[in-house]
Amino acid sequence: MAEVSYAKGLEGVIAAESRICKVDGENGQLYYLGYPITELVASCTFEEVTYLLLYGELPNRDQLAVFSAKMRNSRDLPEPVVAMVRDFPASAHPMELLQSVISYVSSYVEHRIHHGPHCNCRDTLHQISEIATVVATYQRVRDGHDYLVPRRDLSHGANFLYLLRGEDPDADEGEMMDKALILHAEHGFNASTFTARVVASTMSTCYCSMSAAIGALFGSLHGGANEKVMDMVDAIATRDNAKEWVNRALDRKDKIMGMGHRVYRAKDPRAIVMEEYLQQLSEKKQDFTYYEILKEVEHAFRERMEEKGKPIYPNVDFFSGAVYRLLGIPTILFTPIFAISRASGWLSHILEQRSDNRLFRPKALYTGSGPRSVVPIAER
Amino acid sequence: MAEVSYAKGLEGVIAAESRICKVDGENGQLYYLGYPITELVASCTFEEVTYLLLYGELPNRDQLAVFSAKMRNSRDLPEPVVAMVRDFPASAHPMELLQSVISYVSSYVEHRIHHGPHCNCRDTLHQISEIATVVATYQRVRDGHDYLVPRRDLSHGANFLYLLRGEDPDADEGEMMDKALILHAEHGFNASTFTARVVASTMSTCYCSMSAAIGALFGSLHGGANEKVMDMVDAIATRDNAKEWVNRALDRKDKIMGMGHRVYRAKDPRAIVMEEYLQQLSEKKQDFTYYEILKEVEHAFRERMEEKGKPIYPNVDFFSGAVYRLLGIPTILFTPIFAISRASGWLSHILEQRSDNRLFRPKALYTGSGPRSVVPIAER
Repeated sequence: MAEVSYAKGLEGVIAAESRICKVDGENGQLYYLGYPITELVASCTFEEVTYLLLYGELPNRDQLAVFSAKMRNSRDLPEPVVAMVRDFPASAHPMELLQSVISYVSSYVEHRIHHGPHCNCRDTLHQISEIATVVATYQRVRDGHDYLVPRRDLSHGANFLYLLRGEDPDADEGEMMDKALILHAEHGFNASTFTARVVASTMSTCYCSMSAAIGALFGSLHGGANEKVMDMVDAIATRDNAKEWVNRALDRKDKIMGMGHRVYRAKDPRAIVMEEYLQQLSEKKQDFTYYEILKEVEHAFRERMEEKGKPIYPNVDFFSGAVYRLLGIPTILFTPIFAISRASGWLSHILEQRSDNRLFRPKALYTGSGPRSVVPIAER
Repeated sequence: MAEVSYAKGLEGVIAAESRICKVDGENGQLYYLGYPITELVASCTFEEVTYLLLYGELPNRDQLAVFSAKMRNSRDLPEPVVAMVRDFPASAHPMELLQSVISYVSSYVEHRIHHGPHCNCRDTLHQISEIATVVATYQRVRDGHDYLVPRRDLSHGANFLYLLRGEDPDADEGEMMDKALILHAEHGFNASTFTARVVASTMSTCYCSMSAAIGALFGSLHGGANEKVMDMVDAIATRDNAKEWVNRALDRKDKIMGMGHRVYRAKDPRAIVMEEYLQQLSEKKQDFTYYEILKEVEHAFRERMEEKGKPIYPNVDFFSGAVYRLLGIPTILFTPIFAISRASGWLSHILEQRSDNRLFRPKALYTGSGPRSVVPIAER
């Protein structure tokens, strides 16, 4: 059936207009609403960036105070949701829990959500705030603890570390976690964001759209790259093994995780920031193991690529897993943390989709059987 | 930004190849895997059609016996899922519950689901079977009852009525419910099925993909048309009001729900079957109110359309709501019943997507701000 051509995976196909995100791959720049990611990380909190994504402009102090209070007031979990987390089978993945919780949570939102272009979801920020609480509570239950009431005096990132640890994170680590969330908040029409837009295009609720997006992020072709980078780091174990490990992997034509990016021809700007964080944390913890292994991998990989004239740089996933590990975060939470962060981008896209909506309903190219008659079961 | 043209809502854009469904709108035919829907309804059970959708061929007796046993053994709900249903806020919609439950259920599935092109989801049919149990249990709890253990000696449709009613449905009604599920099991790349495929394309699990599809079906532009038809019927109240009501609505340029279909130029073949069911049930219950109102609406509408030279026919939603009502099913369950039925189609598409996968990742047309600098918050 190759007579009709089409773009598999909709590669290169424009699905909608968007004002939210621009990736300038040639120059290694990423912009949210026109602001370079590096400036946003340098000057803003995750709450400010979330405001930017939902309203299109950065807030002034008064606007931020109101918005931040709303986000923080939405952190608590209703008791039946805590029960879901407690009862969740130990062998299952927290992304399944998260997808489930977010559509469930919508039924506890005080102001009901309307099926229309306008809803009150900028006011009921449970669908962003509670994701962090669910992820932390999942881990607390695994660790033999129970639900801890979220703090309202901490940033989104610092509160997450507080819930995980059961004690205040120091200011540096709280801020670093908050900044890491900014780095992953938005990246255009990836599969999860596209899923959120498709679901939103039916005039389903924000919560149901975000739940669907979480389902997409769970896929191994989407989330999880930083987990695999850390699997590699664990397999390499010491810096002295790194070069040989990389060379052998490349000889086998294995992929080196965290290297290269579909869009960036220059270094991923988020990777530069993450590498700085990793350096800072390694210094602070006096543990350079991950950092040294990663840098060895990067050099060995670059040498091989330069032989071929292919400059390929590390992406953000290359360093983020090691940063999370040094912050004491278990590997199984890496993809859920991606969801905590990307929630802001998803909601931004859902609102944009609704503001000028057309139901997504592409065509299939039928390649199946011609008409045939049902043979009664007795004769099959 | 009209310089670059693109198809809004991906209208007319081929997103993938598919062997599953063919709609011949000109001739009013719908085929699943090449079989006309009218023949499938006449000769098969919902379980047979589900087998067809998952395996591509109709089962013989032995194959059906094995498959049917699997589906029936997967009907029960784990206790924590029953607790979710019990605790579900009364004001919320069962579609939110359903979306939540299906990703949650995946964690209770005995054979773990793999993130790859091959998984065991044809064997663990909870993601199809439990949808019916959750919907029925939701209604039972609303009615002041509790979880009722599903029966294994009844068809999928009859068991659903049994759970709703707490007593055996008579054979005709059980069969009619089962056939109604066949009629809605599959219809190509609608928004929910497309959602299921996008999520599946990340190699997320079947359960998480189906949960996402439920979120899309919940949207008022997708599911819910038969609910709106019954709202119209309720507003009209008696057959004598129908003609005037339709004429006034058309004068106001209001849409008449359940009339016309994007694809069918002839009568929707499913509508023909549904109308027969409505006739049979009206006869049996000796209650022709809905049927008479609907037929009056159809005639009044057709007269007006013929004046304009536009032959527009009723679609399946035009009659299905009245059928469900006469079966004693509350209106809030109409969209959930659509999900019970379409679950088979979704899983069929998920399996097909995986069998020749490419991650869905379309492009956005950037229409946002040029680069700008972050102004510190104190100066905003």
